[in-house]
Amino acid sequence: MNETMKTILNRRSFRAYKPEQIKDQELQTILEAGKFAPSGMNTQPWHFSVIQNKDVLNKINGIVKEGLLKSGNPQMAGRAKDENFSIFYHAPTLIIVSADPKVPTPQFDSAIALSYMFLAAASLDIGSCWIQAISVAFNSESAKPMLKELAIPEGYTIYSAGAFGYPAVEAPAPAPRKEGTVSFIK
Amino acid sequence: MNETMKTILNRRSFRAYKPEQIKDQELQTILEAGKFAPSGMNTQPWHFSVIQNKDVLNKINGIVKEGLLKSGNPQMAGRAKDENFSIFYHAPTLIIVSADPKVPTPQFDSAIALSYMFLAAASLDIGSCWIQAISVAFNSESAKPMLKELAIPEGYTIYSAGAFGYPAVEAPAPAPRKEGTVSFIK
Repeated sequence: MNETMKTILNRRSFRAYKPEQIKDQELQTILEAGKFAPSGMNTQPWHFSVIQNKDVLNKINGIVKEGLLKSGNPQMAGRAKDENFSIFYHAPTLIIVSADPKVPTPQFDSAIALSYMFLAAASLDIGSCWIQAISVAFNSESAKPMLKELAIPEGYTIYSAGAFGYPAVEAPAPAPRKEGTVSFIK
Repeated sequence: MNETMKTILNRRSFRAYKPEQIKDQELQTILEAGKFAPSGMNTQPWHFSVIQNKDVLNKINGIVKEGLLKSGNPQMAGRAKDENFSIFYHAPTLIIVSADPKVPTPQFDSAIALSYMFLAAASLDIGSCWIQAISVAFNSESAKPMLKELAIPEGYTIYSAGAFGYPAVEAPAPAPRKEGTVSFIK
């Protein structure tokens, strides 16, 4: 099996990170992967906000926490009540992917860019996890004042976000794959 | 640079393919990558319809062609008028990704699965291209009777499709990357 396939099959989502920051060169490699993702009509409609400042990370976490507590979802609210709650599992780096919603396929473009960054991270033994709750919380009216602080370009929508850091745990086993997801028409 | 990064940075979209079919083992590797893509809440909401039958490929192309001719978009209609028109550039394999629209993030999940398959293909020197026009054409009312023939599960939506085959041309140079797509908040 080639190295790319090994990375693809072995990349897992991590939910515990070491506090140590990832190296700048590793971060640059991860971002390079995101920039080289394909995009519909080559619009490259994305913006990557790399957040490593602890105060800003805490602020983001606070806003998500508040949103979850008010969500009416008992499971989410229960999780958010935990004193040690961190929506990004205390990862030292968060990358928020926003994009111009007026291009043909902003969801696809953002998702692929983030998945490219996840694979690049995995190839460097850096863990990652998709943090969907951030886009939910930050596309709400109450979070708008913070968008500038997160360097989200005017008019862009936050589509996805990922946590990055050195894993503090072993890679979990892959979840079993669903059966019957392929049909051949030969 | 590690092999995964090389695959990520060097994968291009191909728009000309050899008629020769890809090997079954290569196809299996590509599908394995798609199945191992991450998905929101691990729903794995996708279905992969692998189409290699020439009659079915021609039928798909005919439906897309008809849609483009009627689209009112002069550029698209002009392209579709070409006698040699092929929406998937005469690639011998087409993979249509449909998914359950009721999961939280079907667009993201489908896009990432397809991008994983593109990277797997690139790691095997197989070319690929995202064919967005297929989801547009096949989610319309007039194409519904054909969904069963394409093995799209009842109630699923087609989100994306990709052409796969051995490239008939050299890899094109990468399009220049946009400047200013990253902000650091350290």
